[in-house]
Amino acid sequence: KGGKLLILPGDHIGPEVVTEALKVLDIIEEVTGAKFERDFDLCGGASLDKHKDSVTEAVLKKSVEVDAVFFGSAGGPEWGTVQPNPESGLLRIRQKMQIFANLRPCNFASKSLIHRSPIKPEIISGVDFTIIRENCGGAYFGTKIEEEDYGCDPWEYHRPEIERVARVAGALATQHDPPLPVWSVDKANVLANSRVWRRITHEVFEREFPKVEVMDQLADSLAMLLITKPTAFNGIIVTDNTFGDILSDESGGLTGSLGLLPSASLAGPPAAPGTRPSALGRNSAGGVLGLYEPVHGSAPDISGKGLANPVAQVLSLAMMLRYSFNMHHEAEVVEKAVERVLDSKADGGLEVRTGDLGGKAGTKEMSEAIQGEVRRL
Amino acid sequence: KGGKLLILPGDHIGPEVVTEALKVLDIIEEVTGAKFERDFDLCGGASLDKHKDSVTEAVLKKSVEVDAVFFGSAGGPEWGTVQPNPESGLLRIRQKMQIFANLRPCNFASKSLIHRSPIKPEIISGVDFTIIRENCGGAYFGTKIEEEDYGCDPWEYHRPEIERVARVAGALATQHDPPLPVWSVDKANVLANSRVWRRITHEVFEREFPKVEVMDQLADSLAMLLITKPTAFNGIIVTDNTFGDILSDESGGLTGSLGLLPSASLAGPPAAPGTRPSALGRNSAGGVLGLYEPVHGSAPDISGKGLANPVAQVLSLAMMLRYSFNMHHEAEVVEKAVERVLDSKADGGLEVRTGDLGGKAGTKEMSEAIQGEVRRL
Ligand SMILES: CC(C)[C@H](C(=O)O)[C@@H](O)C(=O)O
Ligand SMILES: CC(C)[C@H](C(=O)O)[C@@H](O)C(=O)O
Repeated sequence: KGGKLLILPGDHIGPEVVTEALKVLDIIEEVTGAKFERDFDLCGGASLDKHKDSVTEAVLKKSVEVDAVFFGSAGGPEWGTVQPNPESGLLRIRQKMQIFANLRPCNFASKSLIHRSPIKPEIISGVDFTIIRENCGGAYFGTKIEEEDYGCDPWEYHRPEIERVARVAGALATQHDPPLPVWSVDKANVLANSRVWRRITHEVFEREFPKVEVMDQLADSLAMLLITKPTAFNGIIVTDNTFGDILSDESGGLTGSLGLLPSASLAGPPAAPGTRPSALGRNSAGGVLGLYEPVHGSAPDISGKGLANPVAQVLSLAMMLRYSFNMHHEAEVVEKAVERVLDSKADGGLEVRTGDLGGKAGTKEMSEAIQGEVRRL
Repeated sequence: KGGKLLILPGDHIGPEVVTEALKVLDIIEEVTGAKFERDFDLCGGASLDKHKDSVTEAVLKKSVEVDAVFFGSAGGPEWGTVQPNPESGLLRIRQKMQIFANLRPCNFASKSLIHRSPIKPEIISGVDFTIIRENCGGAYFGTKIEEEDYGCDPWEYHRPEIERVARVAGALATQHDPPLPVWSVDKANVLANSRVWRRITHEVFEREFPKVEVMDQLADSLAMLLITKPTAFNGIIVTDNTFGDILSDESGGLTGSLGLLPSASLAGPPAAPGTRPSALGRNSAGGVLGLYEPVHGSAPDISGKGLANPVAQVLSLAMMLRYSFNMHHEAEVVEKAVERVLDSKADGGLEVRTGDLGGKAGTKEMSEAIQGEVRRL
């Protein structure tokens, strides 16, 4: 068990939370005997400062030779938007690894968090969906034009790009019995690429996942409905890069706990527990090649102070264990440990919470509490 | 006072609410002596059914000869997304009229509505911003490619398109003393057209509105912040067509009362009370050429039943009086009348509310209550 990791802590709070999450991995190694080879390197602002580029060819090369990339965060106001900016490093890794399916779950890591949502509990309680964002195409990639008086980003999709991400949605939906419902989100009433997206998505589901219910949903109207009826979308939401970018950040706002949200970007459909993934994107650890990063960015305002919440990075580690290493049980142990720490007060224990959750704990303290629970589980 | 109107009631509930809003206009005519010439025509599904096109050349021609277009809604499941669909009629009118600035206010028409928001009152109370969405460019227009296996929409902006919408933001901001803050929303860390947008927007403000504070805000992060800290954006939000489409619908979800939200699409910067607009987009009524429509769509589920809330259409009428006819006082009277009806219960009166607001009133009843208040004011 185990495999090869490329670790890119990145900028600002990235290294702080990555360090803590890796301590959880140490414990997993200790307890299970699994071994994770760890190669640390630079990406984002850290790479710009040292190599004058947001990611080097060497790092890009390594990113496809490992079983998974564990990522912190890239960016900060000091680097600006002039190209190459820190974010371009992340985009180039996504492209190189062809991690075309970005998964972002929206649910509560612990019931005790429901009251922290900006949304009324009777509306948000029970929310549980995953957004699958197409992560290697659309307007964010392709040949851009940037002139003094004109800018253009072609928003385009080819059939294979749509098919493969639809298959990830189908694979995730059919890991449940009955299968989860799927919403395919587009703007087919206006965009040509959305009409192609919609048609091909339905073709894939009819042919390969006939038992899954797929519904079309316009992106603008979903932005509204996620606030007014969030639980109506419990299941899988699959959408293009741009809509996914915005809607998944919006979903982060729904739960109100940005410091808790993990994400996985996969190079192929994930395997169900007890099965092996298909050939697409399979790594040598028997899982899927993927990159794992928290949804929160580099948080320059609190960086260097030991205040960042490590939970999103730790939950990203859990997703890595599940999807890239087929360690479903260990993934659940980590998630359970986080839940227990977040519930500790409700259970009459000591409250260990970082500032973003209204507590006074630091990064280390929060992390140690999680490590303790992982050992106990 | 007054001028020429093209009235396009459109589909489903469109005609129902337009009819009621025009009764309010009748009263304005009666009381002020203003005269509004009214030409009724078809757009959307209604036009497809009769003319096999979502809008005819004749209607497009008229749309630029009048002083304002009063629009209901276009679309419905029976017409689908195959081109031309009902929505394409609206898009072609936007293009023809060059109504490049779509204004959507996000606030509470009455304090009594705050508790109806899905967001907790302590977070949403006091929210008051206007989104200005670029309405004639970006990915929703231009030369699209739609093939069996490929779709492309160029997401592009030229300097003049950015300058003119920035000027609308500047004009609205400087109608207040001190000027309202402006957030320019883009994705300059990824999109070339956003970088051009950001640079040119700052040029316009530095040169023409040096007193206005303009801040850059990434679109994805704004989607989250609008939920967690909505009042932090009280002021003006200006953004491109796609981001504006999604973020303005999201804002509709924030207040939780879609049936109340009006919009204005303008062909030039609006004039402050007591002044005349600049040459760009000026109509012969001394205001700005514009199209006014509720944010809610055609609501096929409740159409034909007399249940639709007429308030969004009535408030769109108020925006029309203000921007296209420089009738600021009358616009306020209509807004005040709506507020009084919505507050009626709080004031110890009879509650008159449509189903979307938890009441039992029909379209007519709600409309009559508003008409009554307009007469009294
Ligand atoms: C940092 C940036 C390039 C990135 C994106 O837009 O994809 C981020 O916003 C995200 O959502 O992962
Ligand atoms: C009907 C459709 C073309 C339109 C748009 O996307 O512009 C609508 O969603 C809107 O926001 O006015």
